[in-house]
Amino acid sequence: MPLPFKHLLSTKQLTRADTEEIIRVASVMEKVRTKGKSDLLKGKVLAALFYEPSTRTRLSFETAMLRLGGDVLTAEGIQFSSLYKGETIEDTMEMVGQYADIIAMRHPEQGSAEKAGSASRVPFINAGDGPGQHPTQALLDLFTIQKECTAIDGLHIAMVGDLRYGRTVHSLSYLLGLYKNLRFTLISPTELTMPEKVTSFLSEKKIPFAETTDIAAGLSADVLYMTRVQQERFADKSEYERLKLQYVLTEPMVKGKKVIIMHPLPRVGEISTDVDALPNAAYFRQAGNGVPVRMALLAMLLGKA
Amino acid sequence: MPLPFKHLLSTKQLTRADTEEIIRVASVMEKVRTKGKSDLLKGKVLAALFYEPSTRTRLSFETAMLRLGGDVLTAEGIQFSSLYKGETIEDTMEMVGQYADIIAMRHPEQGSAEKAGSASRVPFINAGDGPGQHPTQALLDLFTIQKECTAIDGLHIAMVGDLRYGRTVHSLSYLLGLYKNLRFTLISPTELTMPEKVTSFLSEKKIPFAETTDIAAGLSADVLYMTRVQQERFADKSEYERLKLQYVLTEPMVKGKKVIIMHPLPRVGEISTDVDALPNAAYFRQAGNGVPVRMALLAMLLGKA
Amino acid sequence: MPLPFKHLLSTKQLTRADTEEIIRVASVMEKVRTKGKSDLLKGKVLAALFYEPSTRTRLSFETAMLRLGGDVLTAEGIQFSSLYKGETIEDTMEMVGQYADIIAMRHPEQGSAEKAGSASRVPFINAGDGPGQHPTQALLDLFTIQKECTAIDGLHIAMVGDLRYGRTVHSLSYLLGLYKNLRFTLISPTELTMPEKVTSFLSEKKIPFAETTDIAAGLSADVLYMTRVQQERFADKSEYERLKLQYVLTEPMVKGKKVIIMHPLPRVGEISTDVDALPNAAYFRQAGNGVPVRMALLAMLLGKA
Repeated sequence: MPLPFKHLLSTKQLTRADTEEIIRVASVMEKVRTKGKSDLLKGKVLAALFYEPSTRTRLSFETAMLRLGGDVLTAEGIQFSSLYKGETIEDTMEMVGQYADIIAMRHPEQGSAEKAGSASRVPFINAGDGPGQHPTQALLDLFTIQKECTAIDGLHIAMVGDLRYGRTVHSLSYLLGLYKNLRFTLISPTELTMPEKVTSFLSEKKIPFAETTDIAAGLSADVLYMTRVQQERFADKSEYERLKLQYVLTEPMVKGKKVIIMHPLPRVGEISTDVDALPNAAYFRQAGNGVPVRMALLAMLLGKA
Repeated sequence: MPLPFKHLLSTKQLTRADTEEIIRVASVMEKVRTKGKSDLLKGKVLAALFYEPSTRTRLSFETAMLRLGGDVLTAEGIQFSSLYKGETIEDTMEMVGQYADIIAMRHPEQGSAEKAGSASRVPFINAGDGPGQHPTQALLDLFTIQKECTAIDGLHIAMVGDLRYGRTVHSLSYLLGLYKNLRFTLISPTELTMPEKVTSFLSEKKIPFAETTDIAAGLSADVLYMTRVQQERFADKSEYERLKLQYVLTEPMVKGKKVIIMHPLPRVGEISTDVDALPNAAYFRQAGNGVPVRMALLAMLLGKA
Repeated sequence: MPLPFKHLLSTKQLTRADTEEIIRVASVMEKVRTKGKSDLLKGKVLAALFYEPSTRTRLSFETAMLRLGGDVLTAEGIQFSSLYKGETIEDTMEMVGQYADIIAMRHPEQGSAEKAGSASRVPFINAGDGPGQHPTQALLDLFTIQKECTAIDGLHIAMVGDLRYGRTVHSLSYLLGLYKNLRFTLISPTELTMPEKVTSFLSEKKIPFAETTDIAAGLSADVLYMTRVQQERFADKSEYERLKLQYVLTEPMVKGKKVIIMHPLPRVGEISTDVDALPNAAYFRQAGNGVPVRMALLAMLLGKA
């Protein structure tokens, strides 16, 4: 079933039918990947335009395209020359649409994805626009929850860390608003609580949530979604050091528990490496899930799945 | 018919038989592209060596190679390491010729393409050498004129903007010198008139030309070739601001006219976006024409077309 | 015959059986390459992770993978974003191992390859870790000696230039320790003699060696392995200028002699360009040999040769 849109700009454009179909196709793609290379997208070219570098996201998109038999054009980082010459993002899209069959773009400015999508003649995927949206990350998070917990309806989701500025927890919250009988526990320093736009969304969707500073409140949830607390958010560095330690997950805290541990990565100490070997440490599997989810999106937006 | 040379360094090496054959093969390549991927260059590797970044040109070369079934090696920008270690361009060519079957190089120094070509054991294409030549741009311009106007002989060509430093208008002028019964109108600020080497070339080829500062003189030509007026050319910024506005093309100026509007892109305001929807706005099609023209050159220089 | 290890971290892990098998497979790969593209590694993805740029080594790995029908993911240089966010090399390997089937990594820190290898779930190749090891360079050097001299046992090897800091001569010396009846002549300024760890290794392997400052002592060897003398090694620049000139190879010194001239490249004047045309100038062929050697290693570590 094709998706009812040409461009993927934001999680907010997705219905539950869309997410279920994407998850279904991603499950098929997982099997394609383990069997080797497919020819599904042979002759198609992806342009990966990364105005700011994000190796993780870029390599995940590129490997998704290659494993489906497609080809990849890459432009990354400061040497990205059109920018220097003052070209608008709309003109860049017109130009790249002459070369590629589908575009994935990462850009530091919020709203850039919408501008680009409006100008693109070929399917366009937002691969993160600054503090804005990062819908493929939210979809791979959702796919991971489905795979690790079998079903999404009815789960207790705990989110930990910098909930104020963390783009991933916002996008994921909007996406989970499509599901039933959820319960949220929001765990953060008081300086970094979930923004009102997200909590009022949860209220509107009648999703009960508790806010706390204590990570212990999340250890018996179904999913514990960890995030980085970033030093640059704090004027007082000693305050940062004090808070950071409160949100470090260690093996004794979760060993033998059923809670699924997720993290968008990279981590910088929030999860102790002794957690890695636990069966419920899902964060590296989560990173891997980016490949089948992006394979699914590329194929669906190109009308091939 | 193979081209009578191994390396493409400059438009000056081309005869009319060459340009006609390149245009003919590019027309065939356009059909190949719309049918999906060809295997014509399967097993061949292009090295795209961009000592200075040029995303537009690089992506155009790369997509041309990929669409013919070939593979691509890319090296771009300041991290281009051999440079740091003081290697000569000749040694770099010897080395890259061990890895790739054909090389496209962009370099900031005029004359670098000639050096590189003299040392390369595999076919070499100049993808722009500083203020020097950029022959594939001129060829895609020529291909665009042919497609948009059906024939090139007999046309009235107007060139607008920075004619002094604009590499593209120089290369294109030399190439148009191969055609018959042309007429040029050269429109620029007096500070930025066409250099004597080009106007004396036109005289030698018996191509009549008029020079003026008034853009109105170009609006009834067959082709209006717009270029950027670059701020860095002016010591007096207010002078720049004044002049820039004189060379902004807007919809009322060209609507309903038959003049074909071209621009090498990126534009930074010289063409108002309300022009984009007009049928005679050819600049995005022109960018797209870079792909079949480069497909043709890659295939011909590799002896496959 | 598969290699008896999963990761290639150092020449020190190799036995003579290993090097002979790698050389044998590389010889087969040379023929594969001249026939065009193979499908041996179709569906496999190489991640080329270059934390510091090395165009030469990277392009050689990439072309090796492409010529075997595989695909390539590339991350190079300072824009390598995970680094900025403080991710450990072990976590990066876990992540990249979710995307790629084999990893080649270049990193400025000695010991980084061992860390990375210990964490990688897919085969890992050290493509140079700072002053540490660069085993694929040593293997292509060995392959070159075998090809140029037919056999390795019994040869007289002269090494010239900066023997103190030159990583390539160290790695190659360890590898030659696997062979019989060799003899070394070590030619360098007294400031840049071969380190004791290497000379004591030669003694232990009962390989006779002479140390001298005079390049003439190497001109009748079987192999003359030239290296750069780097300016930054000298506090006194005039001392550098004086020494540099002593180690410049010119045509009259080697013309008509049978000595095979090698250099890891890039050169910055140590070998005069008039040497290039001599039949015993092997350094560009040596660079080319990197491709079949890396084809062999990729195929063998992926269990396909």
